[in-house]
Amino acid sequence: MRDHFEVRNGDAAGRIGRLSVPRAGVTVETPALMPVVNPNIRTISPSRIESAFGAEILITNSYIVHSTDDLRERALETGLHDLLGFDGAIVTDSGSFQLAEYGDIDVTTREILEFQREIGADVGTPVDVPTPPDVSRERAERELATTERALSDAESVDTGEMLVNAPVQGSTYPDLRETAGRSAYATDLDVFPVGAVVPLMNSYRYAEMIDVVAGSKRGLGRDAPVHLFGAGHPMMFALAVAAGCDLFDSAAYAIYARDDRYLTVRGTEHLEDLEYLPCSCAVCTKHSPDDLRERPDEERERRLAEHNLHVSFAEIRRVKQAIRSGNLLELVESRARSHPAMLDGYRALLDHAEQLEREDPASKGSFFYLSGESAQRPEVHRHHERVTRLDPDGTVLLTEGGIPSGDTYDAAWRVVPPFGPFPRALSETYPLTGEVPARTDRHAQEAAASGVARVVEANPETSFVLAHDDWPASALSRVPNRVETELVHDGR
Amino acid sequence: MRDHFEVRNGDAAGRIGRLSVPRAGVTVETPALMPVVNPNIRTISPSRIESAFGAEILITNSYIVHSTDDLRERALETGLHDLLGFDGAIVTDSGSFQLAEYGDIDVTTREILEFQREIGADVGTPVDVPTPPDVSRERAERELATTERALSDAESVDTGEMLVNAPVQGSTYPDLRETAGRSAYATDLDVFPVGAVVPLMNSYRYAEMIDVVAGSKRGLGRDAPVHLFGAGHPMMFALAVAAGCDLFDSAAYAIYARDDRYLTVRGTEHLEDLEYLPCSCAVCTKHSPDDLRERPDEERERRLAEHNLHVSFAEIRRVKQAIRSGNLLELVESRARSHPAMLDGYRALLDHAEQLEREDPASKGSFFYLSGESAQRPEVHRHHERVTRLDPDGTVLLTEGGIPSGDTYDAAWRVVPPFGPFPRALSETYPLTGEVPARTDRHAQEAAASGVARVVEANPETSFVLAHDDWPASALSRVPNRVETELVHDGR
Repeated sequence: MRDHFEVRNGDAAGRIGRLSVPRAGVTVETPALMPVVNPNIRTISPSRIESAFGAEILITNSYIVHSTDDLRERALETGLHDLLGFDGAIVTDSGSFQLAEYGDIDVTTREILEFQREIGADVGTPVDVPTPPDVSRERAERELATTERALSDAESVDTGEMLVNAPVQGSTYPDLRETAGRSAYATDLDVFPVGAVVPLMNSYRYAEMIDVVAGSKRGLGRDAPVHLFGAGHPMMFALAVAAGCDLFDSAAYAIYARDDRYLTVRGTEHLEDLEYLPCSCAVCTKHSPDDLRERPDEERERRLAEHNLHVSFAEIRRVKQAIRSGNLLELVESRARSHPAMLDGYRALLDHAEQLEREDPASKGSFFYLSGESAQRPEVHRHHERVTRLDPDGTVLLTEGGIPSGDTYDAAWRVVPPFGPFPRALSETYPLTGEVPARTDRHAQEAAASGVARVVEANPETSFVLAHDDWPASALSRVPNRVETELVHDGR
Repeated sequence: MRDHFEVRNGDAAGRIGRLSVPRAGVTVETPALMPVVNPNIRTISPSRIESAFGAEILITNSYIVHSTDDLRERALETGLHDLLGFDGAIVTDSGSFQLAEYGDIDVTTREILEFQREIGADVGTPVDVPTPPDVSRERAERELATTERALSDAESVDTGEMLVNAPVQGSTYPDLRETAGRSAYATDLDVFPVGAVVPLMNSYRYAEMIDVVAGSKRGLGRDAPVHLFGAGHPMMFALAVAAGCDLFDSAAYAIYARDDRYLTVRGTEHLEDLEYLPCSCAVCTKHSPDDLRERPDEERERRLAEHNLHVSFAEIRRVKQAIRSGNLLELVESRARSHPAMLDGYRALLDHAEQLEREDPASKGSFFYLSGESAQRPEVHRHHERVTRLDPDGTVLLTEGGIPSGDTYDAAWRVVPPFGPFPRALSETYPLTGEVPARTDRHAQEAAASGVARVVEANPETSFVLAHDDWPASALSRVPNRVETELVHDGR
């Protein structure tokens, strides 16, 4: 167990965790959203972010503080908490973003970490190299080596009680991300930002974002708190948490508001396109779109930023509740229908079902079959694994409904798509207590057929008869030839 | 056009409408949610429902007023608006529900309509027979005949400026619902409640609910305002609106609150199971679940009822905005992942794609492909219809990506799953401007193959070559044999 992070309830690779931040004297419950506060621009004051939105942690940029004389002096004099007016935990970025944008910055990892410690940051960040997507492998490897030197430098700095980020880079090479995750995890640093994913998110490359996260997670231990750096759109919180991310940071709430953009869990709207405010927050119940459009710029920006924060924090609570209820993937199912690229992201997540399965609890709430994608959920894989461990003898009927007449069997197992076969004794166990639609689909039937195949292959001495309710060829082709098949009408 | 209802923007069979309620002097924008106010119990006062939630219309039960001496006298003396303290439109139910529950009531259609007019109701209701699901056809027909006599009686009552409901019954027989819709539409009554669907909703039979609505809608004219009577759960508003419903009534907000139940657009939670309040409304941002649990019963009930109303009205605004933006089916896609029974409901809606297609506008926002179900959307059917009207000559290449080398063609059409083939000139028209996932699926490929088949069949003199990116057998089997097929790699 890492010193400052404790994992509690889990669902898929998502979890409720507790990040202790000793310097701030607070424990932050994750998944957590860290609003980004620009030290020069306060759309909403940090104290209001704390009191009205319940933020326990925020993030600001120590490089901006460092390079602005006035801010630097005040921060060194009274400390960052006083400067911002915030009592919770403050994470400071290092200027790596500026490095990536402008090619050069004038601080080293040692200098910026010492400065962060001096101004009272609770979590500091070394100067890593945020390698963008799609670069050559050589460049990704070379820059990763620089990032790894920065982590090594960071270990040698006396940072006192301040926690330190260990960013994971590697561009769009999942194996490099895995390597980077492994070496970051091997340091004595504390929090693990997956870096340089913003370009992927900005161009809706959610599938690749998931592959990058999955790679990083393979390298990191399960007890590592993971920050998806730059991820602030509530549309993807559920997906990213299900992939194992714990911390998000939102500059979007303020930047989007400046541009009259309105966040929702299904995407982004522009205020000028809205005839209605599709949200239940205090801003949206007290105003109409016309009303907001007519407000002075500053007030409109502040109200939109408040809406954006309300919707973002509500989604974080929804994600946490889903983890507690054991239906996080059901929430992801819904969010995956926000945009075709989010569907790609969910499909990519399910490509990693076996990786998720290793963290997913064995028993949760009720499994809901909600789409063809549900057939690939980790719970289905685990069930197939589990039934291969049983040893039925003689002749076993596997049936979706009725029992074909005139035959006798040593055992009759139920078959329920997408799970496949199981003895009745398991009926009341998760996920078999799940709910499936009356109108099933081929994906469920094919997954059930794969379950049949697994059981049959694991029991070469046993005879099997499969009574199915009109499965298509794509399902029946997965059933081994030695299984006798019969058509029955589903008895449900 | 019916006198008191005007249909404006549409999407699928959903629409923004304006219901003029002359007696109240108001015009109600639909889809609208009518909170149910029990004249004896005021969880939230009607004046607050008006001021804080923006309700333009509510519904109460005139039978309860009629059978309670005190209420009857006050209503006759000062009028229903004064009794309830509400300035908007008031719809009054007739006691049909009590008839269905207790088998007998002591008023006739004439008596209750006259009473409703006397107390100042804005929309009255005759005494119809809410036939439950699954009864014998004989009973459904017999009771429908009684309902039709009630409508005929209602036409003969002098109701002044009061609008009158013409309920559509017929149990779970879609053809009876269609007949009932046709005869209700033929009366001079004003609003058309689809009745007795509550038992279907209570047992999550959303697919059958959709079949009942689709049947009723086939009988009713497009200009008929349709009330889905008893439907108050925000989870199904989008689905029901997409099927053509305009009015909803929610008793749920108050009844559920009494029982510590918390509504969300993804289902119902019990307060005792919540560790977080997964919502952005004022109640949920100001309280924690523990905090609510510790409040006195009456306050807790009121706050939960307020949350329930906030989430319900926000969903109505979301549905309206989706109609305006032309992405109502995208919202339904998301809501269909709330529960397997909601997926059944969406799949049932898509069974009626051709019926929806007749009302769906030809050009909307951007089409998003969000699941295998998206391949069955009405826009896909319409595109197939449209491309059969083109007359390509000679040899036409239909291609998903590259052009097979060494051949020449008279024309090259693009093929995009799920739409199928189209000439490049149409690329910028709806729905071909739509977004599809990079990871396509068989459903999209099969729909595209059906599109190919339609074009090929419509042009018997033309030769076709199909260059596809590895379609499965289930798609290729839909392509006519005379089409030469080649594998290409998708150029996207």
